[in-house]
Amino acid sequence: MDKLNIMLIISYDGTGYSGWQRIENAQKPSIQALLENRISGLLGQRIRLIGSGRTDAGVHAIAQTANFICRTSDGEIPKNFTAHLNYILPEDIRIISARKVPLTFHSRHDAISKTYEYRIDLRRPPSVFDRRWTYQEKGELSEERMRQAAAYLVGMHDFAAFSTHGEKKRGTIRTIYKFEIIREGSSLRMEVTGDGFLYHMVRIMAGTLIEVGRGERSPREIPLILRSRERDAAGWMAPPQGLFLKEVRYRHIDIVR
Amino acid sequence: MDKLNIMLIISYDGTGYSGWQRIENAQKPSIQALLENRISGLLGQRIRLIGSGRTDAGVHAIAQTANFICRTSDGEIPKNFTAHLNYILPEDIRIISARKVPLTFHSRHDAISKTYEYRIDLRRPPSVFDRRWTYQEKGELSEERMRQAAAYLVGMHDFAAFSTHGEKKRGTIRTIYKFEIIREGSSLRMEVTGDGFLYHMVRIMAGTLIEVGRGERSPREIPLILRSRERDAAGWMAPPQGLFLKEVRYRHIDIVR
Repeated sequence: MDKLNIMLIISYDGTGYSGWQRIENAQKPSIQALLENRISGLLGQRIRLIGSGRTDAGVHAIAQTANFICRTSDGEIPKNFTAHLNYILPEDIRIISARKVPLTFHSRHDAISKTYEYRIDLRRPPSVFDRRWTYQEKGELSEERMRQAAAYLVGMHDFAAFSTHGEKKRGTIRTIYKFEIIREGSSLRMEVTGDGFLYHMVRIMAGTLIEVGRGERSPREIPLILRSRERDAAGWMAPPQGLFLKEVRYRHIDIVR
Repeated sequence: MDKLNIMLIISYDGTGYSGWQRIENAQKPSIQALLENRISGLLGQRIRLIGSGRTDAGVHAIAQTANFICRTSDGEIPKNFTAHLNYILPEDIRIISARKVPLTFHSRHDAISKTYEYRIDLRRPPSVFDRRWTYQEKGELSEERMRQAAAYLVGMHDFAAFSTHGEKKRGTIRTIYKFEIIREGSSLRMEVTGDGFLYHMVRIMAGTLIEVGRGERSPREIPLILRSRERDAAGWMAPPQGLFLKEVRYRHIDIVR
């Protein structure tokens, strides 16, 4: 029996879940626990799934990555593994691909960048079809102001003010490589790529930028908020249904969806 | 008190409803009944809503039209009527607009054309985000074959074969003005405009064209199916979640959304 490390790219509609990570006494199942159970059942062995990171309850993934170690007779991924797994999974979770990776590969530790997308619907009235996948803003938003604010977030900063509780282990310094504000008709997207994100960081940045877009805050407040390192200085935490984990990149294996 | 005829343009996600039309003993509410109740409550008078036509259970509307007669003190639509109505409606039904129309206007009788759109997801695996709004086809579809088949449906024909039960009142002759097959990446849309459609006609045409696209039928069967006037000669009825009522046009009032 050969040990095998399998990396999955997973897409999910987070609406019906308590988030990626297994939580005790949650009212809804976690995506991680559900996947672990189904994969373990399919392979006939208990596996433990390592995700690239958590996503909150209600947050979606276009391409989350995860890996697990298992044993197979020939050291290869079982034939039609992806199709069989999709067959037994609920239809709001789909495996995009499964691939063999080195035994040392670790979805979380080896990730070098992540991209999140936050979607806002500005239609009047809002679209009945997009309401599960967008935050619906009632007023207007100035994307020019939001762009000015986003520019202050790009680079290496201490993002303690943009996190719900300080993470001591890895500190609160992160680097944002790119922060784009894209307007397409009556929808607005924020796309942010960084080397990692603190707990709730993307939603707090999104909410703060929405306040800037409304005219409730000035873009120039952003450097002051960063410097304060105080959660209270930053803005509102935007709701989860507008947020999508879009891409996770690794040094040797580039995952693009 | 002046009599007033109000025309609404309505968008809805049909997933949670028994369809547009009020049905006895349905397990889910109908969109018509729900709207009639909410509008009657808002105006403090019992109104009866006339839709441009039925949509089946699970079918969506980008822009359904409907009208109702009511009484107001000044013969005008009450201020902020649309906003107030949207406020009390569930979020899967939105009023796009409300406008005053002549007292003789009738949403169904006066409609001169309707456009439906049928959406198919060809991704592997299918998108977790589009599953409520598309039919997910597992195999490939040849849009060229579908285009050839659709061309035979354009024009004035007896569509009895493409209906679940023959409608005697208005006969089974209808005119299709346009039938387009549009491929965008891994999604395929059929867009059909006609002077009217028989019961289940759009879904049976869509299902038959999908069979043609799969290679299970030849495009040249279409004229034979039309001539047969037999439901059994036509193909499968495609599922409701892929279908959208997109536009209803009137002679004097053009409704474009």
